[in-house]
Amino acid sequence: MVRMALSTQLEYKVLDASCDFIFSMQAAATGRQTIVEESLSISQPLAVNSYTDPQTQSRGFSVRALQGALSIQYSAIVDLMHFEADPASLNELAPTAMPGHVLPYLYPSRYCQSDRLIAFTGQQFGGLPTGYSRVQAIRNWVFNSVRFQGNTSNSNTSAIDTLIERVGVCRDFAHLMIALCRAANIPARMVSGMDYGADPALGPPDFHAYVEVFLADAAGDGRWYLFDPSGTAIPMGFVRFCTGRDAADIAFATIFGSVIAAQPVVHIEVVADSNGNLPVLQHVSHALSTDGPYRKLAGRAALTAA
Amino acid sequence: MVRMALSTQLEYKVLDASCDFIFSMQAAATGRQTIVEESLSISQPLAVNSYTDPQTQSRGFSVRALQGALSIQYSAIVDLMHFEADPASLNELAPTAMPGHVLPYLYPSRYCQSDRLIAFTGQQFGGLPTGYSRVQAIRNWVFNSVRFQGNTSNSNTSAIDTLIERVGVCRDFAHLMIALCRAANIPARMVSGMDYGADPALGPPDFHAYVEVFLADAAGDGRWYLFDPSGTAIPMGFVRFCTGRDAADIAFATIFGSVIAAQPVVHIEVVADSNGNLPVLQHVSHALSTDGPYRKLAGRAALTAA
Amino acid sequence: MVRMALSTQLEYKVLDASCDFIFSMQAAATGRQTIVEESLSISQPLAVNSYTDPQTQSRGFSVRALQGALSIQYSAIVDLMHFEADPASLNELAPTAMPGHVLPYLYPSRYCQSDRLIAFTGQQFGGLPTGYSRVQAIRNWVFNSVRFQGNTSNSNTSAIDTLIERVGVCRDFAHLMIALCRAANIPARMVSGMDYGADPALGPPDFHAYVEVFLADAAGDGRWYLFDPSGTAIPMGFVRFCTGRDAADIAFATIFGSVIAAQPVVHIEVVADSNGNLPVLQHVSHALSTDGPYRKLAGRAALTAA
Amino acid sequence: MVRMALSTQLEYKVLDASCDFIFSMQAAATGRQTIVEESLSISQPLAVNSYTDPQTQSRGFSVRALQGALSIQYSAIVDLMHFEADPASLNELAPTAMPGHVLPYLYPSRYCQSDRLIAFTGQQFGGLPTGYSRVQAIRNWVFNSVRFQGNTSNSNTSAIDTLIERVGVCRDFAHLMIALCRAANIPARMVSGMDYGADPALGPPDFHAYVEVFLADAAGDGRWYLFDPSGTAIPMGFVRFCTGRDAADIAFATIFGSVIAAQPVVHIEVVADSNGNLPVLQHVSHALSTDGPYRKLAGRAALTAA
Repeated sequence: MVRMALSTQLEYKVLDASCDFIFSMQAAATGRQTIVEESLSISQPLAVNSYTDPQTQSRGFSVRALQGALSIQYSAIVDLMHFEADPASLNELAPTAMPGHVLPYLYPSRYCQSDRLIAFTGQQFGGLPTGYSRVQAIRNWVFNSVRFQGNTSNSNTSAIDTLIERVGVCRDFAHLMIALCRAANIPARMVSGMDYGADPALGPPDFHAYVEVFLADAAGDGRWYLFDPSGTAIPMGFVRFCTGRDAADIAFATIFGSVIAAQPVVHIEVVADSNGNLPVLQHVSHALSTDGPYRKLAGRAALTAA
Repeated sequence: MVRMALSTQLEYKVLDASCDFIFSMQAAATGRQTIVEESLSISQPLAVNSYTDPQTQSRGFSVRALQGALSIQYSAIVDLMHFEADPASLNELAPTAMPGHVLPYLYPSRYCQSDRLIAFTGQQFGGLPTGYSRVQAIRNWVFNSVRFQGNTSNSNTSAIDTLIERVGVCRDFAHLMIALCRAANIPARMVSGMDYGADPALGPPDFHAYVEVFLADAAGDGRWYLFDPSGTAIPMGFVRFCTGRDAADIAFATIFGSVIAAQPVVHIEVVADSNGNLPVLQHVSHALSTDGPYRKLAGRAALTAA
Repeated sequence: MVRMALSTQLEYKVLDASCDFIFSMQAAATGRQTIVEESLSISQPLAVNSYTDPQTQSRGFSVRALQGALSIQYSAIVDLMHFEADPASLNELAPTAMPGHVLPYLYPSRYCQSDRLIAFTGQQFGGLPTGYSRVQAIRNWVFNSVRFQGNTSNSNTSAIDTLIERVGVCRDFAHLMIALCRAANIPARMVSGMDYGADPALGPPDFHAYVEVFLADAAGDGRWYLFDPSGTAIPMGFVRFCTGRDAADIAFATIFGSVIAAQPVVHIEVVADSNGNLPVLQHVSHALSTDGPYRKLAGRAALTAA
Repeated sequence: MVRMALSTQLEYKVLDASCDFIFSMQAAATGRQTIVEESLSISQPLAVNSYTDPQTQSRGFSVRALQGALSIQYSAIVDLMHFEADPASLNELAPTAMPGHVLPYLYPSRYCQSDRLIAFTGQQFGGLPTGYSRVQAIRNWVFNSVRFQGNTSNSNTSAIDTLIERVGVCRDFAHLMIALCRAANIPARMVSGMDYGADPALGPPDFHAYVEVFLADAAGDGRWYLFDPSGTAIPMGFVRFCTGRDAADIAFATIFGSVIAAQPVVHIEVVADSNGNLPVLQHVSHALSTDGPYRKLAGRAALTAA
């Protein structure tokens, strides 16, 4: 078990009389990620509408802020109980064996046009043995083929652009890996969180985007496993905020009006748990998941031929 | 109440030893669309995995078919109890007033890159009074600006392409209308069904794609209202199959292998209900919905300023 | 006649052992633009390869610069003898009446994908009377539909992007107008120069990109006429540097290596000619050209039918 | 010397009162390709405007055809005097050593967006020794990475699309090779002709598109050398029609109106020359050119440092 403490400070200046915001930057509660404590404070006295997606546990809240300064402060203590598996034990599932809620993550999305990459994926990865090792090969190919550089992409940049131009930031690495996995019929989705363990040379701590891929154990039970194609952070320290098909679903703030925004200030660290354990997180070769399991499809009815 | 009878016949020849299929072409059960009876028959004796999306009631099933001929026959009797509203009574909701499950339909998707159309939408529709009439204006603009012509688009064609090239089929009209609505902060989604009432000059009866937009009544209760931007069919006769962000989510068949496919043969008609009523369906000026309502957000907690 | 004085100062720091540059920022000599005097100085003692395109009179020179500082200074005194015509007298030519050297400017290019805009152009401009007034309508539509804002586009931004996103700088306005003209079968090309007369609020004087369109007088003799779709400068003061299909052809500097570049410092003003005339340049309603004429095609041989 | 006989038959039905056509399907006359005899016949008695591009020797003619049937028949006897060179003797030129007329073929064009491929090209081909062998490596990579299949691309398909989707026809192979060469600072252009020697299994004889790349011998004299990235035909039998930046420049017919077009019927064969020689053409390992030479830049003036 790993206990993480994190905080976020967002500062805006609202220019219009009012402005709607949707924020998606709170830790999710899953079977393997529990929220020990958390606090949210908003500098204006505002009504808050909160919701939690029943399938991904992604949380969000919306507010209508008034003209002037708006500060959002969020902090949480979160316990991660990683599920760890031997990569060699994890298989890809056939589409017919995937739970229904997984299928949307096979389909192309705004930034992950997997439908166009089927031939390329077949050429590049089609000959590899299936399973976790093939996903790792896709992750490594993205990591090795794309150069990490700030300010080289924008909100229109998609996996196709990154495949062509070979440069980007964490979201671009994630989009490309997701698109390639889906093109190989492997469900993949995007997760937001913080870049725990990132090299300070890359800049101050920041929000992060990484990948989860759905794989199954020998019994056919599936989980979403973590991958960090940008290689900039340490997956053991990832706290899940939001989960979606791609960046379109998991922006930490969606703003419906004119504002001036400061750079978010984020912080994340490992803290001692109630037993005083303070582990040192590092890269591991196990497969990691903070979600699931989703049981093997059981109820298969044999239809009679017509 | 309108009782519809529909049937679908799909014919494939599987070329490989086996091939996985996901089919999404069954009628959904919603509060205002009930399934009186239905049957599904599959020519091969196969295990079938079925699922229903808990939020959209979209249904799907997957099978692993074996080499050779595969026929899928589906038929259903469905009752539609349309909710009808005066268009003048329907308003757009602010993002902060939208239920959480509606928010994903504000975001861009594979074929509906609304994020790029904000300035255009503002120019073209920003000055109009908000509400149903503005959505109708967007629908009419798409209908009038795009020419309907078969075989002018493909599986890569997006709303951006259709806005540029001004030609397409029903799915292209739907994508463009959806993208424009989202760019105006109006939740919009795509629905699959059949083109009830289409002009036979356009070809034999076919699957159809149309649009639903989320609007609210004076009390703030919301519903998804029907729009048919291609203007090829009669919305009163639309039976909902699947609902999703765009065509990527609602393909009637997703095929993971090599097959030869025949053109689907579909049929839909109005039939007499148990009281012997057999209405003649025509275009109406009311707002129509076959879903909802989704109640106004109630639990707003006022946070204290920090 | 208008006498213009202009100067350019380019400052680079070459990071590698050497770096090839191609510069295209000298005034062209045409029948209606003559170079009274000019000077070019280069801070490193380098061999210079110069060339002039025989059809457009575009000039360029290339150098291999060595590591360290490189300054390029260019200044010129140029006389403009504008050809002015009554817009009502200028017609579009049929493709069969266009000189061969004009035809490439009908075809799509890197940033002007006119082939995709034929339906849109037909809808928007197809009903207008042909001739200069239709080209002016296209120019005005671009001017009114696109918002000028710095740093909103990049070297990948094309006419399609600008049509979709409705924002850009002078090169984006020019690309969109060129693409629309070509889609209407009107030859159009891009010219580089300086933004004479630009509002200082837009920033310091800068390079500029504008449009020339090929139209013919009643006798069928054609010329390239000036249009400035961004509306930021005064066409009477435009000194032609390079002419090409779009920005890909007329970059003021193409650099084959790693350099640090300062913002170019440019200057342009009207100066007194040898008679002491010092005109005040302003927007005019005449059609303006600084090139041509290209005579009507004469040698038409009638072939005998086979 | 190789003597080729070729013919083309184009059949149209003009639907409007008249329709302008530009045809570009006649053999070019270069220093190494001479026209022994040729004939052009047009089924309607029309005025014909012909032109020849002074730099590429591309020829074209335009006609205004009247409603009804239009047949164009062209035939020619052409002598090819190939320049053959040892691939190992051919070098890439630095941009500063390239003749001015070559520079446009370094820049991106409608279908060859080389500006976006610089990083990819560097990764894939940057480590190879420069010269003919590197160009051959690019050609082989395209040949091996893209699958030839009819009806998989359209008039909007660009090199970027082909790099992503890995399927196409000869023009797509050519566009991708050209884009990659330009991204590596190697001038490359597209040539139209006929697919001499193509496998009949690919269909009847057809027009063809291939690539020329500018390379220089040890003395610095340059030529355009032939490459056929689709590998469908035998370069020794290529008769040059038109030369341009990409397919936008060299369409065999550009049509300004509504017509019904039959599939072109083309024919090409080797015929005996005046000495009775009738060579059997086959694939060769020499570098081949049917153009040039373009002499090394001589007049380099050393400028004095400022």
